Amino acid sequence: MKPNPLQRSRVVIETITPAVDGGRYAIKRTIGEIVSVEADIFADGHDMIAASLLYRHNADTSWRETPMKFFDNDRWQASFSIDRVGSYSFTIKAWIDHFLTWRRDLEKKAKAGQDVSLDLRSGHELVTSALEQAPDEERGGIKAWLDKWSDPAKPQAERVALALDSFFGERVHLHSDRSLATRYPHEFVVIADPVRARYGAWYELFPRSCNSDGKRHGSLKDVETQLPRLADMGFDVLYLPPIHPIGEAFRKGRNNNPEAQPGDVGSPWAIGGKEGGHKAVHPELGSVDDVRRLVEKAKAVNIEIALDIAFQCSPDHPYVREHAEWFKKRPDGTIQYAENPPKKYQDIYPFDFESPEADGLWQELRSVFEFWIHHGINIFRVDNPHTKGFPFWEWVIGELKRAHPETIFLSEAFTRPKVMYGLAKAGFTQSYNYFPWRNTGPELRQFMTELTRTNVREFYRPNLWPNTPDILPQFLQYGGRAGFMIRFVLAATLGASYGIYGPAFELCEDRPRAPGEEEYLDSEKYELKSWNLNAPQSIEPLIKQVNAIRRANLALHSNDLLAFHSTENEQLLAYSKRTADRSNQILIVVNLDPHHRQAGVTELNLEEFGIGPKDTFQAHDLLSNAHYLWRGPRNSIELDPKQLPAAIYHIRRHVRTENDFDYFM
Amino acid sequence: MKPNPLQRSRVVIETITPAVDGGRYAIKRTIGEIVSVEADIFADGHDMIAASLLYRHNADTSWRETPMKFFDNDRWQASFSIDRVGSYSFTIKAWIDHFLTWRRDLEKKAKAGQDVSLDLRSGHELVTSALEQAPDEERGGIKAWLDKWSDPAKPQAERVALALDSFFGERVHLHSDRSLATRYPHEFVVIADPVRARYGAWYELFPRSCNSDGKRHGSLKDVETQLPRLADMGFDVLYLPPIHPIGEAFRKGRNNNPEAQPGDVGSPWAIGGKEGGHKAVHPELGSVDDVRRLVEKAKAVNIEIALDIAFQCSPDHPYVREHAEWFKKRPDGTIQYAENPPKKYQDIYPFDFESPEADGLWQELRSVFEFWIHHGINIFRVDNPHTKGFPFWEWVIGELKRAHPETIFLSEAFTRPKVMYGLAKAGFTQSYNYFPWRNTGPELRQFMTELTRTNVREFYRPNLWPNTPDILPQFLQYGGRAGFMIRFVLAATLGASYGIYGPAFELCEDRPRAPGEEEYLDSEKYELKSWNLNAPQSIEPLIKQVNAIRRANLALHSNDLLAFHSTENEQLLAYSKRTADRSNQILIVVNLDPHHRQAGVTELNLEEFGIGPKDTFQAHDLLSNAHYLWRGPRNSIELDPKQLPAAIYHIRRHVRTENDFDYFM
Repeated sequence: MKPNPLQRSRVVIETITPAVDGGRYAIKRTIGEIVSVEADIFADGHDMIAASLLYRHNADTSWRETPMKFFDNDRWQASFSIDRVGSYSFTIKAWIDHFLTWRRDLEKKAKAGQDVSLDLRSGHELVTSALEQAPDEERGGIKAWLDKWSDPAKPQAERVALALDSFFGERVHLHSDRSLATRYPHEFVVIADPVRARYGAWYELFPRSCNSDGKRHGSLKDVETQLPRLADMGFDVLYLPPIHPIGEAFRKGRNNNPEAQPGDVGSPWAIGGKEGGHKAVHPELGSVDDVRRLVEKAKAVNIEIALDIAFQCSPDHPYVREHAEWFKKRPDGTIQYAENPPKKYQDIYPFDFESPEADGLWQELRSVFEFWIHHGINIFRVDNPHTKGFPFWEWVIGELKRAHPETIFLSEAFTRPKVMYGLAKAGFTQSYNYFPWRNTGPELRQFMTELTRTNVREFYRPNLWPNTPDILPQFLQYGGRAGFMIRFVLAATLGASYGIYGPAFELCEDRPRAPGEEEYLDSEKYELKSWNLNAPQSIEPLIKQVNAIRRANLALHSNDLLAFHSTENEQLLAYSKRTADRSNQILIVVNLDPHHRQAGVTELNLEEFGIGPKDTFQAHDLLSNAHYLWRGPRNSIELDPKQLPAAIYHIRRHVRTENDFDYFM
Repeated sequence: MKPNPLQRSRVVIETITPAVDGGRYAIKRTIGEIVSVEADIFADGHDMIAASLLYRHNADTSWRETPMKFFDNDRWQASFSIDRVGSYSFTIKAWIDHFLTWRRDLEKKAKAGQDVSLDLRSGHELVTSALEQAPDEERGGIKAWLDKWSDPAKPQAERVALALDSFFGERVHLHSDRSLATRYPHEFVVIADPVRARYGAWYELFPRSCNSDGKRHGSLKDVETQLPRLADMGFDVLYLPPIHPIGEAFRKGRNNNPEAQPGDVGSPWAIGGKEGGHKAVHPELGSVDDVRRLVEKAKAVNIEIALDIAFQCSPDHPYVREHAEWFKKRPDGTIQYAENPPKKYQDIYPFDFESPEADGLWQELRSVFEFWIHHGINIFRVDNPHTKGFPFWEWVIGELKRAHPETIFLSEAFTRPKVMYGLAKAGFTQSYNYFPWRNTGPELRQFMTELTRTNVREFYRPNLWPNTPDILPQFLQYGGRAGFMIRFVLAATLGASYGIYGPAFELCEDRPRAPGEEEYLDSEKYELKSWNLNAPQSIEPLIKQVNAIRRANLALHSNDLLAFHSTENEQLLAYSKRTADRSNQILIVVNLDPHHRQAGVTELNLEEFGIGPKDTFQAHDLLSNAHYLWRGPRNSIELDPKQLPAAIYHIRRHVRTENDFDYFM
């Protein structure tokens, strides 16, 4: 076999980061974040290497280029910033820089007192060749500089000094020959999301219970009346369970009773009835126009509306009649309902993603998203995505984000870790996760460390929910009001994105359907509820206070710099977040025990705050408004769940001392 | 964009191991080893998955297939064995197995007492479709079985029991529909090397010093006289520095003197003279026929000859006249000699791997290997490969191994780690490494752990050399005879492949050219040497004994199961090797202090040996022939460097007790 002449490219580029599965999947960033790219770059021999990071927003046709810098052990680095939603691509180019090599060697030889007349001639050749690449406006200056040190009549020392001029050296380096450059064969993709993909407080409610007394069916207009309260509490996203017509066949009754009683409202996830399917609104909730109006009203108080997209049908869904080919048939010709043997879900028909007619199905499902995007929705909470094919998600989210890069898709997949990560790789912007079941210090530390300090951070963004309509964790069942406060502070400070299902959450609703279960008793999934929002046990004031703290402190807008600290009492969990420049630093300490006062001494990792081991610093508890002067890593903390089971300290590194006093003021 | 119909394949395959850089480079194995392949395999929903490992020797046209087994956390595994040199490819196929899913669900439903008449009809459809794929000889049996349980007149319980028959279940599973299988898009390559690539004791000598009195020039015929001694010592490979004509221009004198004196023999690495270049033999050494004869004689005593390939030229090399286009020119038209400014190597002309005529150069260099392969050489020690382009190595080794899969290429690259690893990825079979400079316990442990317990093991095989003609490490300069014994035992037991440069090594030659340098005084690289092989300080007996132990103990033929153990004396380094089936287990303890007796207590990791914490076991020191009965991890060891600074224990797990006594014998 003949060698490929391109193989004369001597530079090797390897192990590029960040990357997901070697570049098979995109990494994720939001506006304002940077992509810090590293790679191993090396070549044979001792010649000097130069490398460039190439990147472009995919709406642009040309690449931007920034020089990479060597930092250690053949590893090079360069960064670029995300300033537009959409997607970016990046790759790396590297080459032997014969001009830089020549400069380095010329300097060494001249220092050793060697005759370098031939080397100066070699340099002349290199610069002359670079001149051909240089833009017109630079050519004159470089040529004049070259002529100065090319004159063999001048003393060699003078010529060398001129030739080593750093200004012209940099100019020539920029235009030196790259014809044998190695370009990494893969272009890595970065999904550029809006900030909301990284940071936001979510609130879920059932519209039909809004302003309900348990009998009256609430509507989207009733939801409008909740907006001021939600805005005052500081929520950014209001997420509604499915708002579509609900099927009547096999409708479930209260507490998931297989036999519905007359008047039972059914589960919103049994989608589709005679009034329509995924593009229709349940008549008692209102109309598509009401959705649009709610979106506008919410926007006025800085709240975004998120819809639930559950790709499944009730037996009454129009698709069942019009597109029977999208469902599996049983041998008797009926449509196969959902089942997890021996359990049967006869009110739900799943789509058949292996159907030979899958093309039409996929296009239709995409059009469901398009329909709601058209009506002002940008955020979708996707129900059980792990029961639909991964290739479908990769295709549909790819298509939608290409046309609507501001959209956000929250994956509601409570399943095995690799499946959840697989959905994130396939394109989901955010994901539900195991937070509801991570309660102890070691559990929370291990869980959040995997999400924030491993490669998982590049593609998987957790949204922390202490409860959902399906999940009332045991910690909340037995922890009382303090338990809700604890789980709330954990969710809202561990997670830049978090959410609660309310008003059940702020009202500390803790009754399970049966002991050991996580289903709510008299769950709102199957009936209308009347909520007393002014009940005394409500933790609304804490929620409002914490959301205000979140907004005011940039450290809490990202999970990137989450760090755990030790304490001498395992019931006290301490962790911090900070901005990269340390302009905002927050330390959170939570008493994980909802029943007992816990006291203990911290063992802070002060390096995390840029504080010396003997420095004095201020810790201002933003919840209690107490100010502390602390010195060193060990500080006593006591938290009483009956009052406030957590502290959120704003850490100020600099404390005024006598040295700051301006005697001449 | 229309969805791709192939995307109906619902199974995801990810994170396949073993792989080097995601499959960009081959992994390496030797005959008799296995490739254990793992992957994350999952799909949406709860359907059953089946997966196959596909593999083939690249001389075969069809794939072999072996079922993968789920073991944990969505991870699956299967293996295949390497039984022929050359290369193998493997990849993975996985699919939703609707038949297995049906069986699982049928069983669950029947157990729950549900009516499964429709399920039995679904099963009939699945089996009927599988029948089309089944081979003729199986079809009758499956059909008869199907007919038995398809009869609706039979009691349902009986039909279910028949339908769940495991024998026919397995047959049908094998022929079930795979039309929507996911096949991983990449085929991974395994280089299949001869055993010698993994295991061997190497000996390097300068032929011109053989039987020399320091004046007489030795020859390849003289090397033949050394073969019985080397075979008796137990060496597998005899490696000769370059045997080609040596240039006269700028020839180096003794001790690297830039001015050679009349009669100075020059460095064998200054290749090429009027008598020829890389395909010629230095006349005083003999002829190409003598090489062939030496290979034959060596083979008769189970020794393989390795040649040194140094791709560089003396100014007198025929290439310089005939192919000036393969070298860089200076501005005055002369050829650029090697330099590392301010140092100049005027006796060496490097090839220009960026030359526009590189094609011809590459073909010629390949032909050098082909020439010596034609004359019986299969092992090449390649000099300074890190000063020649990586693409060249990937091409030339790839081409050569395709035609001659039994060849072995040892990379002599003492350079930065990623460059050394890069050469291994490009194709080198084995590599020199940092062993000469790893002397303390923590250094050796860290060094060997990186090579044997990280992904490096998949592509990089170390060959451990305590000395080379270029490297007389300080440990040997100051450690006396015990120092040589220590470094020898470490090399020969830590490394399945190791080598020494002799007779300097066994004669404990320890004089550096200057203090702090690692060059030998009066180095054989520049002069003829007279060696007294019978000198009393020779450690030849230890070498012979250790090589015999290596041959007799399979545990020492691989680095795969190297494990370090703790001792309470940091001067005592303890480590073990074992076969995968534990049929051979060796524990080595080395006193790293060449000057003092050291005693201490081991803290053995007995799990490594499959021994319980309170079990008694036998440790037989194969060096001293002492037998010990040990119990538990803590055992006292004392090693005196004046006698024997190391112990090599054969660990026998089972010790006879009264329970083994057969009273009826």
